[in-house]
Amino acid sequence: MAAVAGHEDTRTRLLATALRLFTAHGVEGTSLQMIADELGVTKAAVYYHFKTKDEITEAVVEPGLRELESIVGEAARERRVGARIDHMLAGFVDLVVRHRALVALFSSDPGVARALEKHFFGKESCMVGMMTILTGPDPDPARVVAAHAAVAGIALAGGSPDLAHYDDDTLRESLLEVGRKLLGRPRRRG
Amino acid sequence: MAAVAGHEDTRTRLLATALRLFTAHGVEGTSLQMIADELGVTKAAVYYHFKTKDEITEAVVEPGLRELESIVGEAARERRVGARIDHMLAGFVDLVVRHRALVALFSSDPGVARALEKHFFGKESCMVGMMTILTGPDPDPARVVAAHAAVAGIALAGGSPDLAHYDDDTLRESLLEVGRKLLGRPRRRG
Repeated sequence: MAAVAGHEDTRTRLLATALRLFTAHGVEGTSLQMIADELGVTKAAVYYHFKTKDEITEAVVEPGLRELESIVGEAARERRVGARIDHMLAGFVDLVVRHRALVALFSSDPGVARALEKHFFGKESCMVGMMTILTGPDPDPARVVAAHAAVAGIALAGGSPDLAHYDDDTLRESLLEVGRKLLGRPRRRG
Repeated sequence: MAAVAGHEDTRTRLLATALRLFTAHGVEGTSLQMIADELGVTKAAVYYHFKTKDEITEAVVEPGLRELESIVGEAARERRVGARIDHMLAGFVDLVVRHRALVALFSSDPGVARALEKHFFGKESCMVGMMTILTGPDPDPARVVAAHAAVAGIALAGGSPDLAHYDDDTLRESLLEVGRKLLGRPRRRG
């Protein structure tokens, strides 16, 4: 048990370290050796968990994707179209704000974009689920374009280094407003 | 004179061919040899115009950037804040729609993003000029976030393969509406 806990702990630290190095040097500019050095372990210890940098990149991205999947699932279970959109929008904005560093990396780094591609942009992906919810039933082109612009705008503005000095609450409220305006949703009471 | 005209013509064809190959295979997946083969010229003929693929990528991107610069300049010369924003927005949307293939490449290809970076994201770049116009004087955080989301949303939705089946007019009108909503601008009359 202790060994398993130790391995889990190393894996978690490894992923946090990888994200930090990816942010500083890009995925291309980060080697397994650099991750090992930063962690103070041998390269063999890194290999124990991950065989390639692509595997690490996928593992860095995975928790955020799982969260997005579960938000899509929750939103889809709302009965009213408006409530579905509001749930999806609030969940997506909150995810982007909490994972700002990763989102910034995703928008700027080809390595992360590649790792995300198969999960995020495949036919069955959560991106399709999110878009279906945000466009609503029988959308006209203006609505489809607005939903695409909302998702791209929220993700890129959320991860933008130009906006990194805003605190989470300010960024979250401003990004929600972006989504509400584009999707025609009222401000929530309370 | 005839020789110069011939060279100009080859250069233009070379850039159009490069954009087509970049779109099909990515910048990384396109070689100078592939460009030469597609044009039916020798690799030496390509070298006559460009020494590296980076030079070609920059040259492919440059006309669009020059257009953006001149739109920023025109918009800045408008006297009223609202007119500045409307001019900038209409010009940017039109540019994105006319250069859809390039915008799509820019959003998805690290090679193009790198070539654009120094022109587009530097301190003195036209991106800064565009943002200054779109946010208006003394913007609050919500306004800054909205302007960033508008630019990112328009560019990424405009270049999205999911929306490639919309005709130019439909896409242009829908993207303008995205910008107007986020920047609080009224629809134009007429």
